[in-house]
Amino acid sequence: MNILYDERVDGALPAVDKAKVLAQLRHALPDLEILHRAEDLRPYECDGLSAYRVVPLLVVLPERMEQVQTLLKLCHANQVPVVARGAGTGLSGGALPLEKGILLVMARFNRIIEVNPQGRFARVQPGVRNLAISQAAAPHGLYYAPDPSSQIACSIGGNVAENAGGVHCLKYGLTVHNLLRVDILTVEGEHLTLGSDALDSPGFDLLALFTGSEGMLGIVTEVTVKLLPKPQVARVLLASFDSVEAAGRAVADIIGAGIIPGGLEMMDNLSIRAAEDFIHAGYPVDAAAMLLCELDGVEADVREDCERVEAVLKQAGATDVRLARDEAERVRFWAGRKNAFPAVGRISPDYYCMDGTIPRRELPAVLRGIEELSREFGLRVANVFHAGDGNMHPLILFDANQPGELARAEALGARILELCVAVGGSITGEHGVGREKINQMCAQFSSEEITLFHAVKHAFDPAGLLNPGKNIPTLHRCAEFGSMHIHQGKLPFPELERF
Amino acid sequence: MNILYDERVDGALPAVDKAKVLAQLRHALPDLEILHRAEDLRPYECDGLSAYRVVPLLVVLPERMEQVQTLLKLCHANQVPVVARGAGTGLSGGALPLEKGILLVMARFNRIIEVNPQGRFARVQPGVRNLAISQAAAPHGLYYAPDPSSQIACSIGGNVAENAGGVHCLKYGLTVHNLLRVDILTVEGEHLTLGSDALDSPGFDLLALFTGSEGMLGIVTEVTVKLLPKPQVARVLLASFDSVEAAGRAVADIIGAGIIPGGLEMMDNLSIRAAEDFIHAGYPVDAAAMLLCELDGVEADVREDCERVEAVLKQAGATDVRLARDEAERVRFWAGRKNAFPAVGRISPDYYCMDGTIPRRELPAVLRGIEELSREFGLRVANVFHAGDGNMHPLILFDANQPGELARAEALGARILELCVAVGGSITGEHGVGREKINQMCAQFSSEEITLFHAVKHAFDPAGLLNPGKNIPTLHRCAEFGSMHIHQGKLPFPELERF
Repeated sequence: MNILYDERVDGALPAVDKAKVLAQLRHALPDLEILHRAEDLRPYECDGLSAYRVVPLLVVLPERMEQVQTLLKLCHANQVPVVARGAGTGLSGGALPLEKGILLVMARFNRIIEVNPQGRFARVQPGVRNLAISQAAAPHGLYYAPDPSSQIACSIGGNVAENAGGVHCLKYGLTVHNLLRVDILTVEGEHLTLGSDALDSPGFDLLALFTGSEGMLGIVTEVTVKLLPKPQVARVLLASFDSVEAAGRAVADIIGAGIIPGGLEMMDNLSIRAAEDFIHAGYPVDAAAMLLCELDGVEADVREDCERVEAVLKQAGATDVRLARDEAERVRFWAGRKNAFPAVGRISPDYYCMDGTIPRRELPAVLRGIEELSREFGLRVANVFHAGDGNMHPLILFDANQPGELARAEALGARILELCVAVGGSITGEHGVGREKINQMCAQFSSEEITLFHAVKHAFDPAGLLNPGKNIPTLHRCAEFGSMHIHQGKLPFPELERF
Repeated sequence: MNILYDERVDGALPAVDKAKVLAQLRHALPDLEILHRAEDLRPYECDGLSAYRVVPLLVVLPERMEQVQTLLKLCHANQVPVVARGAGTGLSGGALPLEKGILLVMARFNRIIEVNPQGRFARVQPGVRNLAISQAAAPHGLYYAPDPSSQIACSIGGNVAENAGGVHCLKYGLTVHNLLRVDILTVEGEHLTLGSDALDSPGFDLLALFTGSEGMLGIVTEVTVKLLPKPQVARVLLASFDSVEAAGRAVADIIGAGIIPGGLEMMDNLSIRAAEDFIHAGYPVDAAAMLLCELDGVEADVREDCERVEAVLKQAGATDVRLARDEAERVRFWAGRKNAFPAVGRISPDYYCMDGTIPRRELPAVLRGIEELSREFGLRVANVFHAGDGNMHPLILFDANQPGELARAEALGARILELCVAVGGSITGEHGVGREKINQMCAQFSSEEITLFHAVKHAFDPAGLLNPGKNIPTLHRCAEFGSMHIHQGKLPFPELERF
């Protein structure tokens, strides 16, 4: 199984007359900004996964919701596919354009409509940056918890589409756990409200269904997020280990002791050395692995938890445990972790970032398995990841200029993801499926489960116009990859089988 | 709008030949226990909402999953509707049988398959009682957080179907937030896994969609729940107020101060007096309203939070604040609250329990509105509810033997729920829609939203055989109740329009 999506993009979509679509849009929406020249379209050819590039048919940059609504109605009437894009920071190609489709850029909807400290929520437009919400809430001592690494740039609409995570997910949940309500436009341009301002909503939980649906079920027009009080204090412990397995076991022991850290991150020796060379964080360069464990809350609680975690770490075989002496050292410890990806970029011409989630208790076995695979493929793998929630980010180091290395890196990546699935994990933690992992979905799910995904997609978007070719593979594709049997050649949703 | 479902039950379903279905079942499943005589069926004619009673066609009591699978296949082939039932404690008639349908009782699947303290999860069969999970986890210092009042009797399968809540939801979430994975059988008897043992799962979030779907999307066959460490200490504060509005404001102030109590409950004077007469909990019988606020966690943290909450309560106008002196008094304070419903039952021949959720900040206004409606309808209303998450349980007191009082109680209930919807709340917090609130769904949702619910139902169960007539109203029904316009008389899912 090849990890990269093969290049049949747009192939099965009906032909589109670009000039005609452009004329129609200009007629219906005279004040909508539309990009149509090659040089204007080029900056939009990829999102954060730049290995895939497709120049879109047209790019539209609406500023008012009525424009989006009219656009959707027009595209629906003419059967033109639409790909929504927020800030374009996604790492799985979820916002990769279509040659025969319109790229709907929602970035200009960047207004914070309301910050309500008493109700502990904020209502924002979809193009608002993740970090901007916390900045707006800060004067009230509140913040928005999910914190993807791209939080300075990524938009909340994209966060909803990808169910974004971050360092603090373990304690504070994913995007879906921090939403009250999402307003959307359907493929037909109808406005719907999912969830409510109250804590629960009757009927099927369409808010949760929509979150993480990667632009396939509708367009986000407004998001109401929960705000949390900022913890009074945060302290971080750095523990060294002489094997990655021991560090993996310590992670399970901390959680097993009933402590939920604000962040619990692991780095192996390769990552430690790369980060230390780059940031000079004071990391133990001889350790086989290290853990960063942040405890947050009120002073007395944090003090007690630090003592308990230190005891657990030593019991689990930590060779050294250090509490950051002051805020400056705490920030430095985190700076090393947060810059680990670019640091690895300094020691290898290229790297390929994986994103798999496994049950926490499987960490030692999977880390050992990755070591073995690394030797088998003759490629170095750096491990730096959200250990507390079992969300791994193995970075496969390779040199694209060496013939065959890219293919070998991809093959190794696929094997790592298969290992994650084999131990009860999943092929993605927080980066989404997008275009990148569409084939792995066939390994993760049965044909019955894939069929049910299609049935749900069909319920929202019968013609398959919203972000086709992402997230959910066709049964045809899975059959081609050998992991699925198609009964008598019949496909239940032929109109969703174009990719 | 009448709050009670009108009595057209089964009317639109095709006729069923009981003898033939019975013979088919016996042939295909010779060792399945089947109840078919009137006296055996009678105990199953209702769930916890005993105002609605329907004797089912047949009751089946399977003990092995293969039996359930064969049964579903047989029913699907013969187009016989199936209503699943757990412990039958639901309060909205979600497990109300059908005259022309089979009642599938899952109570015998009561095995705890695995308690995994390191992974902090338990795998259980659907008939396992909610409290039994916490009891099995207790030796490891763990528990299952959602705690509906019926937790001694209700089953986890039913909890999943209703997305059950409880006193501790505010801090620890609803059922949906405490699940890792649910295994189901589809209407066609296919086994599917929703969610995974890891913290996230790619594709659409069918686990969340399924949770709270009230038996309409599939049959639960196994549930993997998260286990949490038991808090080290719990303390409770009792605060008195001279108006319900002031108590309502104090609730918002506590949350606004960044404190999330383990439980935050409110009772008005009528409930206080009823509970005190019954339990002698030491409640302030002259107070217009009281709050019970429980703080849990580690010792130092709880001590600090108690001081902060006391200050907030006094600032908000509490006339008296008492900390339970010891564990015995804490248990007594809670005993009054937990017995408030039966206590109200002692002071009125009948009462009707409502369940609406509102944004917390609307508590003072809605409590005032309920007072006014109570005077307008000439019926007493006792308020005792989960104030922290805005989940209200007004109890309408009436005497069914007085002509017209039941109808007046129902009309008042409908007005209260409409008030909840008007302030941005919802018609149910934790009891579900079931049969009881099917009409109110038309007030809560637009025709586009109801249509989308039907499309999702159709994705799982195209023929509408699973628990028809519950949870999601037909568009026809909504049109009849005057709140919806049907376009040119066309209904998008005619096969789901039988009720």
